[in-house]
Amino acid sequence: MAPEETALLEKELLSRQKAVYSYLKTEEYSLRFSPPDICEAVYSYINLGGKSLRPAVALFSCGAVGGNEETALPLAAAIEVYHTWTLVHDDVIDRDSKRRGGLTIHEEWCRRAMKKGYDEEEAGHFGQTIAILAGDVQHAWAMSLLCELHTKKGVPSSLTLSLIDRLQTHVLVILAKGETLDVQYAKIPPDELDEHAILDMLWAKTGMLYEFAGEAGAMVGLSVDDTQHTLVKALSQFTSKCGLAFQLQDDILGVTGDETILGKPVGSDIREGKRTVIVCHGFRNATKNQKRVLNQIIGNRSAGGEEVRKAVEILRDLGSIDYTSNLARSIATGALSCLDPLPPSKYKTLLETWAHYITERKF
Amino acid sequence: MAPEETALLEKELLSRQKAVYSYLKTEEYSLRFSPPDICEAVYSYINLGGKSLRPAVALFSCGAVGGNEETALPLAAAIEVYHTWTLVHDDVIDRDSKRRGGLTIHEEWCRRAMKKGYDEEEAGHFGQTIAILAGDVQHAWAMSLLCELHTKKGVPSSLTLSLIDRLQTHVLVILAKGETLDVQYAKIPPDELDEHAILDMLWAKTGMLYEFAGEAGAMVGLSVDDTQHTLVKALSQFTSKCGLAFQLQDDILGVTGDETILGKPVGSDIREGKRTVIVCHGFRNATKNQKRVLNQIIGNRSAGGEEVRKAVEILRDLGSIDYTSNLARSIATGALSCLDPLPPSKYKTLLETWAHYITERKF
Repeated sequence: MAPEETALLEKELLSRQKAVYSYLKTEEYSLRFSPPDICEAVYSYINLGGKSLRPAVALFSCGAVGGNEETALPLAAAIEVYHTWTLVHDDVIDRDSKRRGGLTIHEEWCRRAMKKGYDEEEAGHFGQTIAILAGDVQHAWAMSLLCELHTKKGVPSSLTLSLIDRLQTHVLVILAKGETLDVQYAKIPPDELDEHAILDMLWAKTGMLYEFAGEAGAMVGLSVDDTQHTLVKALSQFTSKCGLAFQLQDDILGVTGDETILGKPVGSDIREGKRTVIVCHGFRNATKNQKRVLNQIIGNRSAGGEEVRKAVEILRDLGSIDYTSNLARSIATGALSCLDPLPPSKYKTLLETWAHYITERKF
Repeated sequence: MAPEETALLEKELLSRQKAVYSYLKTEEYSLRFSPPDICEAVYSYINLGGKSLRPAVALFSCGAVGGNEETALPLAAAIEVYHTWTLVHDDVIDRDSKRRGGLTIHEEWCRRAMKKGYDEEEAGHFGQTIAILAGDVQHAWAMSLLCELHTKKGVPSSLTLSLIDRLQTHVLVILAKGETLDVQYAKIPPDELDEHAILDMLWAKTGMLYEFAGEAGAMVGLSVDDTQHTLVKALSQFTSKCGLAFQLQDDILGVTGDETILGKPVGSDIREGKRTVIVCHGFRNATKNQKRVLNQIIGNRSAGGEEVRKAVEILRDLGSIDYTSNLARSIATGALSCLDPLPPSKYKTLLETWAHYITERKF
């Protein structure tokens, strides 16, 4: 990917991020939530700022079919908030203490409770309570934002309702399935899982919401309530595949990334015993001795930094990281042909650049 | 309340409960959720069966304005599932181990994990994980059910969207506020809270969703998108007040009820230190010595059955239970005049009987 293409994409991504976050930070919303702890928690990850790639993809998809991005702004904002609530709950589930360079909600409110004199157990429970409730409030907020497609942007009520239906009847069921399998797979011996099962889980966890972003963006852009429309399908299939590639790259960064750039802990996937394609490939190719070492470290929640580095070194030596990286690249490149039905446009080019970008990104 | 009126109401409630639960138990939904742990958890409280009072009130409200109950069935089902997901998350937050005579989701899946050999901490965390995700799936399911007002019953898409907007923009924010304050108040000395603040919190926790049930039922019955319509307002105000009375009675049953009838632990409000009107009244009237004893027991998570009984005895002696019971009755009776604008009908009579019923119920 040429540096000037990357630079252009990053500039365009930044402007979408700004638009989405300005939309979310208006007083209309910040005055809505109470008591103060909930309001602060609801805004916590939003104030830290996300990459905002999912909403950008929705806006690009809207533009790529000839739609007006401005109309799709509540959709983009809803997708960002929807993604955010899943992060808040997933962080409780994965017991991660950092997100976007700050503390996760459950960790932040646990520390505040300890300062107030709560004992460790009570403080931990209070932190989880605030995180569960803040995620629930964000879940509802995302629905409320989708309603604004109709109430603020004049999108037909039937199309708006249809998008809500799609997200809540179909998408969330898949997302929750992906998250549950992610947790359950961590308890299954890595030898017993095949790559196909892991890819299915990763797609459910991440690809599904990207698919929705592309699909919904196109539907709003075209103002059609038809997931089978040629251009809608083109974009949903493209973003679906790219979403899987994105998750593969996320897993790579989760073991090799720079914590200060990533803003979240590197190595926690190893400690939680996550069954990534990297780990699956590693076990498929490891010697008996390497497997023994990996088994001691992967899934060991008290493994030290040195041990985690040791596991990553073995996986790197086995070619598991390169293998996953190549797989991500081939999936993203393979997705490009999905865009064939779309007429040439600035947006189409941005989406093409984005497909390369997601597997090259460092954060 | 005459026994034959109660009997008639109970018969009518039972038929609504059956209709709602039949609707929820169709294969269309049970095949939707996966993996099996999530599907089972999503149906756990539903299979145990709730009293289904909120959906019944929505259906009665629909009937009371001359609407067809059949049209409002997806609304009733959505309200029941919406209430259920809040219970699932609240049970994690309140660390309750029983609900509807069975184990709470987090407790059930904790025990299953222990049987699989997880240590206590891991098992507890796994139980919470399943409960968080199952509640999230139910939250989405409730939205999906609301969409069926339009897709299955022909309710205009604009009205359907408006109900979703109302629930997710307004109602949930209040519910989460109520739940957060409920947790936060437990850490504030009981002397420092006045009854007004507690009633506000209780209304937010429970009255708000009852208000929505009445309001939305009436809107669907009239097919109007207008919360200010005379009949809509009549029903929303009536159910709002009755919802508060319902919560006061719930708090009474939480300390004096029969666990085998209630299906949930009696005394856990005492152990969690919940600031109910009962406790507030008790502290307002207790002697120094009584306060000392109450302070030792209320909010003490390891208090034994004997200690809890001691605290309840003191509260009873202070007249706090009778006081709360009278308050509940006066609020429910006071709500009756809200129904004046409604023409006489079987439904109006059922709602009137229900207002008495909620403060006399034993479960």
